[in-house]
Amino acid sequence: MIEPFDDAYFMKKALQEAEAAYEKGEIPVGAVIVVDNKIIARGHNLTETLIDVTAHAEMQAITAAANFLGGKYLKKCTLYVTLEPCQMCAGALYWSQISHIVYGARDEERGCIGLNTKLHPKTTIKGGVMANEASELMKRFFIEKRNLN
Amino acid sequence: MIEPFDDAYFMKKALQEAEAAYEKGEIPVGAVIVVDNKIIARGHNLTETLIDVTAHAEMQAITAAANFLGGKYLKKCTLYVTLEPCQMCAGALYWSQISHIVYGARDEERGCIGLNTKLHPKTTIKGGVMANEASELMKRFFIEKRNLN
Repeated sequence: MIEPFDDAYFMKKALQEAEAAYEKGEIPVGAVIVVDNKIIARGHNLTETLIDVTAHAEMQAITAAANFLGGKYLKKCTLYVTLEPCQMCAGALYWSQISHIVYGARDEERGCIGLNTKLHPKTTIKGGVMANEASELMKRFFIEKRNLN
Repeated sequence: MIEPFDDAYFMKKALQEAEAAYEKGEIPVGAVIVVDNKIIARGHNLTETLIDVTAHAEMQAITAAANFLGGKYLKKCTLYVTLEPCQMCAGALYWSQISHIVYGARDEERGCIGLNTKLHPKTTIKGGVMANEASELMKRFFIEKRNLN
């Protein structure tokens, strides 16, 4: 059976957001938030554009999803994000009581798993979905940035 | 010698922000960010008003301070906040590379110290500045809220 709305489907949408960040000269991280197979929020990293360390892809998607739902809790939602969330974003996801977090590439140094950021007890987290695509995009960004400097 | 610009002076300003949150029916937490004894940003909790779990006092102050400075790093800044920052806010402060964090009351359950949120190596943190005032305001808020329900 063909399952059009699987994790890879939505992670591709998050990767499109990451590419939008890349095009703006931002570290390419993208996110979408999904309810019942419908994307209700999108976000990509805008920390340079907005001159704001809080402007991560996930933070913007969380705010947009709550705005769409008219409520601040994301209890039936799934976040797809191309990179393992940092402490800040995982902390925001804790408050949101989101159901599921699905990420692409690991962030060994600054990711929430290695740093043991507390998630809400109702939240599940899994990684490795299209991880190669996400990390290749990151690598390409940093190589290009190094070559420009 | 009289020192008008001590920690208590700026924590009082943060408490005024907390009172502004209280007046709006928000959990009363307030923050200011200071450089060279000058307040460059203020914020108070607006999670209910904005329907947004990310709208903590510190997050808004971080964004406002970066906007004021025209740069996203808060390297010479001190954050005064009435309550120990949560994981999300401490995570944002990590990215900001802020110099000093001064908080009022402890948050035993959800604060960054008990949860071991990683701060930037250049950041110092201390608490207990006007802690009684901050926690009394919180207690008053929750008693009033309970009585209204």
